[in-house]
Amino acid sequence: MAAQILIPRLCIIGVGLIGGSLARALREAGQVGEVIGCGRNEDNLRAAIRLGVVDRYYTDPADAVAGANVVVVAVPLGAMETVLRAIAPHLAPGCVVTDVGSAKGCVVADVERVYGYIPPSFVPGHPIAGTEKSGVDASFATLFQHRRVILTPLAETTAVAHHLIRRMWELTGAEVVDMGVRHHDAVLAATSHLPHALAYTLVDTLARLDDRAEIFRYAAGGFRDFTRIASSDPRMWHDICIANREQLLEMIALFSADLARLADAIRTDDRAAILTVFERAKTARDNLYLD
Amino acid sequence: MAAQILIPRLCIIGVGLIGGSLARALREAGQVGEVIGCGRNEDNLRAAIRLGVVDRYYTDPADAVAGANVVVVAVPLGAMETVLRAIAPHLAPGCVVTDVGSAKGCVVADVERVYGYIPPSFVPGHPIAGTEKSGVDASFATLFQHRRVILTPLAETTAVAHHLIRRMWELTGAEVVDMGVRHHDAVLAATSHLPHALAYTLVDTLARLDDRAEIFRYAAGGFRDFTRIASSDPRMWHDICIANREQLLEMIALFSADLARLADAIRTDDRAAILTVFERAKTARDNLYLD
Repeated sequence: MAAQILIPRLCIIGVGLIGGSLARALREAGQVGEVIGCGRNEDNLRAAIRLGVVDRYYTDPADAVAGANVVVVAVPLGAMETVLRAIAPHLAPGCVVTDVGSAKGCVVADVERVYGYIPPSFVPGHPIAGTEKSGVDASFATLFQHRRVILTPLAETTAVAHHLIRRMWELTGAEVVDMGVRHHDAVLAATSHLPHALAYTLVDTLARLDDRAEIFRYAAGGFRDFTRIASSDPRMWHDICIANREQLLEMIALFSADLARLADAIRTDDRAAILTVFERAKTARDNLYLD
Repeated sequence: MAAQILIPRLCIIGVGLIGGSLARALREAGQVGEVIGCGRNEDNLRAAIRLGVVDRYYTDPADAVAGANVVVVAVPLGAMETVLRAIAPHLAPGCVVTDVGSAKGCVVADVERVYGYIPPSFVPGHPIAGTEKSGVDASFATLFQHRRVILTPLAETTAVAHHLIRRMWELTGAEVVDMGVRHHDAVLAATSHLPHALAYTLVDTLARLDDRAEIFRYAAGGFRDFTRIASSDPRMWHDICIANREQLLEMIALFSADLARLADAIRTDDRAAILTVFERAKTARDNLYLD
């Protein structure tokens, strides 16, 4: 007799880069039975079927979640509350719900607004993975390998729900860590949300210059790497900035003060101050990566 | 009889990533006779000989330039005036001098301070190439292939000197373009100097947070790309910030105002404004690169 599979019926709401890659990885691991897709873009859903990412799809979340053991809500943060509200009355008993949102405080607030309490089978999650690409076409089974997935289980979350979602992500090759909601949002504001805000702003600053065509012509490899994240989905990042507003604004303020200090050092020819910043940054970066 | 080679004796002052790669490329093109290296770090110079990048080396620039047809000054901008002053009395008649500095106005000012005028055989240059690595060990012959080299010849520059340096860079596989000094510095402030200032500042901002170890642990691929240029040589970039102070400060001011405007939009929940910036940036970035 075959060992029991972890998730007999998985429902992915939002079959994009993350949702699609998760389905692919779980299929490759042989730990998922049927995969039900759900979304608003039928072209994308048909592509998901053609690519073998999902077996069936619905455009109505209420239909899609019927009988599912696990529901993964992989929609932009701005659509989270609407989706959670739509599926709530239709979840099968014992169904575990998780999400993949890049900010967690806002998702927990959405859940509380929908239910009036924290349902014990809801496990907030965030895979720290992705590319600047979007859509199921960009999904691939190894996206989460050796990447970190942060879960922010709440006091109300049951151990069963928590461990099911932990196991699900481990099967994709990810390293799963638990973290508090607020701490997650502070860490991500620093390492992800702030850099995206800076990259978008930089490219937009240059794009609005009179001689932008000429300027972009002389951009080198460093610029290409630096601005790659500015090719990310604008709507998704708009949602993240709104969702993690407080912590992002705090990081922007910190960064802006430091940039103003650097500008002062350049203006006043305080060479020691400039060198100190650059050397400290290089040391930190070199300690982090070997490339 | 063999065709005449372009540069019978080439002197590279500063045998690092750029100087070393130029020597390698010209050797591979078979258009250089003897390559003389010069620098202060004898370990690096011995490595340059071992790697076949140079044939001989001197630590005194006055010795190194003797009899050279072309002298390439590939030292940090902060060392430029000292080197130019040291070599001036020792240049062979007809010797053409060029540099590879990332800012050009300051180099022209250095030349004027050294000579009291612009020597007709001096051709300011800037290859838009490089990696975050430094030193001759990081050099390679194809560094300049399909990259742009900007020359900023002056009214005083002779056509012979200009065309010799143009040809030299074309032999490396680069596309050579001419530009005015001030325009060069404005373009590079936007696409290179500002991004480096931002990357260094971001990494330093995070590196000074109390929970920096925790924060860096959850940095993803986007952060790695975004901060790669913060691994560049701090001393070199310190020099560039000083050398192109005026134009860099202008770009930092523009960027800071745009970032403050984005922060305001996030604070006041002006979602249309956020989305406009992100969409405009993504469009500009996607038009620029296909990755």
